[in-house]
Amino acid sequence: MRPYRELTRGELLALKDELEAKYREFQGRNLKLDMSRGKPSKAQLDLSMEMMDVLHSGVDLTCEEGVDCRNYGVLDGIKEAKELLGAISEVNPENIIIYGNSSLNVMYDTVSRAMTHGVMGGTPWCKLDKVKFLCPVPGYDRHFAITEFFGIEMINVPMTPTGPDMDIVEKLVAEDEAIKGIWCVPKYSNPQGISYSDETVRRFAALKPAAKDFRIYWDNAYSVHHLYDDDQDIVLEILEECAKAGNPDMVYKFTSTSKITFPGSGIAAIATSKNNIEEIKKQLTIQTIGHDKVNQLRHVRFFKNLDGVKEHMKKHADILRPKFETVLDILEKELGGLEIGSWTKPKGGYFISFDSMDGCAKAIVAKAKDAGVVMTGAGATYPYGKDPHDSNIRIAPSFPEPDELALATELFVLCVKLVSVEKMLGDM
Amino acid sequence: MRPYRELTRGELLALKDELEAKYREFQGRNLKLDMSRGKPSKAQLDLSMEMMDVLHSGVDLTCEEGVDCRNYGVLDGIKEAKELLGAISEVNPENIIIYGNSSLNVMYDTVSRAMTHGVMGGTPWCKLDKVKFLCPVPGYDRHFAITEFFGIEMINVPMTPTGPDMDIVEKLVAEDEAIKGIWCVPKYSNPQGISYSDETVRRFAALKPAAKDFRIYWDNAYSVHHLYDDDQDIVLEILEECAKAGNPDMVYKFTSTSKITFPGSGIAAIATSKNNIEEIKKQLTIQTIGHDKVNQLRHVRFFKNLDGVKEHMKKHADILRPKFETVLDILEKELGGLEIGSWTKPKGGYFISFDSMDGCAKAIVAKAKDAGVVMTGAGATYPYGKDPHDSNIRIAPSFPEPDELALATELFVLCVKLVSVEKMLGDM
Repeated sequence: MRPYRELTRGELLALKDELEAKYREFQGRNLKLDMSRGKPSKAQLDLSMEMMDVLHSGVDLTCEEGVDCRNYGVLDGIKEAKELLGAISEVNPENIIIYGNSSLNVMYDTVSRAMTHGVMGGTPWCKLDKVKFLCPVPGYDRHFAITEFFGIEMINVPMTPTGPDMDIVEKLVAEDEAIKGIWCVPKYSNPQGISYSDETVRRFAALKPAAKDFRIYWDNAYSVHHLYDDDQDIVLEILEECAKAGNPDMVYKFTSTSKITFPGSGIAAIATSKNNIEEIKKQLTIQTIGHDKVNQLRHVRFFKNLDGVKEHMKKHADILRPKFETVLDILEKELGGLEIGSWTKPKGGYFISFDSMDGCAKAIVAKAKDAGVVMTGAGATYPYGKDPHDSNIRIAPSFPEPDELALATELFVLCVKLVSVEKMLGDM
Repeated sequence: MRPYRELTRGELLALKDELEAKYREFQGRNLKLDMSRGKPSKAQLDLSMEMMDVLHSGVDLTCEEGVDCRNYGVLDGIKEAKELLGAISEVNPENIIIYGNSSLNVMYDTVSRAMTHGVMGGTPWCKLDKVKFLCPVPGYDRHFAITEFFGIEMINVPMTPTGPDMDIVEKLVAEDEAIKGIWCVPKYSNPQGISYSDETVRRFAALKPAAKDFRIYWDNAYSVHHLYDDDQDIVLEILEECAKAGNPDMVYKFTSTSKITFPGSGIAAIATSKNNIEEIKKQLTIQTIGHDKVNQLRHVRFFKNLDGVKEHMKKHADILRPKFETVLDILEKELGGLEIGSWTKPKGGYFISFDSMDGCAKAIVAKAKDAGVVMTGAGATYPYGKDPHDSNIRIAPSFPEPDELALATELFVLCVKLVSVEKMLGDM
């Protein structure tokens, strides 16, 4: 296909008329579709329904260590849950604390604790004039929302195909003691689906931060969330790399079963060094008597072990893969060669990242919305909602039914074309 | 029985020999009993086992408002859970936010949010030189632990048979802008089992605090936890009283199902004014995508409504009541008239509060421990673990089996007698 930039003004005007007619057609169909959030579909949720059967009134709810899971106690999680989440996180169970239903909440708590109590003897961040976080962009809006909520200044770091630009990361953390953390989604990143290369992970582990209380906030959200059986990304285990590099305490690794069983009714965990674990427990023992052990037991008895999780994730992949392929096929078929947008082709995770021409993302998302398709808000993938190029759009193919998804994507590419033509005409 | 203080030195010495012989007998029995925490017993936990059957793979997990409880969403709890917890808390569902499994965690979060973000536009407490809380004593050690963890200065306020000494509370909050809160367990208080009188509640509602961000932290832990069917304490509803008194935003009311179904696997809630709800939601939306809706649904479908809860609580009472009576009978039979201790006779809740002669509590708890019976640490019922009279001991009769409980109480009264005699001999 001919790139749009090679079209004459006359050709663009004619194209605009044609696209607008198609757009009006879409508007007339009263669509109500949602590609905005990384929500599993009903079919995916159905995969875990048998988990609801493993615990019932005829089952003994005593865990391996002999504790009655129905009663108070066990601050950091039952042994078998630590083993399961440890296996998912690729760390030893002794490096795990099991939390409640939300890894986002664990990240919030981790930042909140640093604000009020500091990190391992450091000054509480609320007593400092300035606290900064590095934010690889595009990234996850809910990470950025946490740091914004606490008044932490966020600094954009560009993503590359192998992870965050480590030249910049190394330089900034070495220079500036106010930089206390960096948000990372190392595997099948949100939204690009990029997995950090071995070199990137090793450079992370070898960072020499000016701030002793600098930590890497490693959101291992898509650890076992592959789309393909035979083509999976592998990311080096960061705790081990940090230990090897002499920075054993530098990372907090977060995980949850939200996109394995039921989002909001799963279990979450932090994996980190024993020193960090001890420090976190000092807070945890004040905060709660313990998390939901019955739900921990339910998950372990359903999956049994990591193999059980992997088998289960294949079923998720069987549902998700065709959806990703549907979106990618339509993007390629409709936009390939037009040079008005580029997109990622992830091998796992929940998102496809789309980059329009500069200055077009907000208008594309608005146009899609006006025709009944909700996308993630343009700008959401950047701190403060400010995409400096107004070009990145996150596509979440998981939730819609397959036929709806195709329709929504058709509308999306139409909006991309229409806004691009309008932009080019305006720039002429 | 003759009061010990009327005994001669010779009589005391003879008594001491006799008590020591009995104590050695106990030591020889290698007991391992626990009366330290307010934990439900196995029989109580068994009461809720049918809750494990209400949700299974054949059941639709859609809530009344049409949301699939298995997926993300619904920040503040499903409608039917708000109705149920609202009924338990005696407030309207619109005044409720449903949280995770622990009301302690909700209290921690509430204080933590005030530290980092202030209360309704007030200065974040972490930016203030001094923040103080009033602590009715004796009280709940985990409340005091939260305020201590955040460096909040705690001021003791004596309890009376009708609640905290309101003359002192009124005076202090009116005078001192640094006083930002007071910890209350208004019904069947921990540890005394005292319920606040109507006058006390009305005086709370009518407080005129110097600090605009002063809040009453009203831990409604034992709302439906009566021991008797025909003799129940009723506490005025504090949100309504605050509204009537022109202080609608002055109270946070906490509740949970921890001692209704399974501690640690229940649901917790905050009840407060709509203004406070709106403010809390600003944090909540950053902190989590939502709490465990499947567990919310499980609880609602098990109980159906408040009547279901009340029926269920009668079964708890049938198990707890004989235990309280066992302890009270032994206390009366063994210590009545000796004037070496006094104790409360609660009509609900989880504790009996015992006051020894001044300076004896630590020694009594230590002696009981040496013979294999663990009590709540002496001092625990006071901020910083410092009981100025070293006299208060919390007795938790719920967890031990009935025969163990009698044995543990027999040992306890023996320790009270022995330590009292030793004390009197030492003072002579």
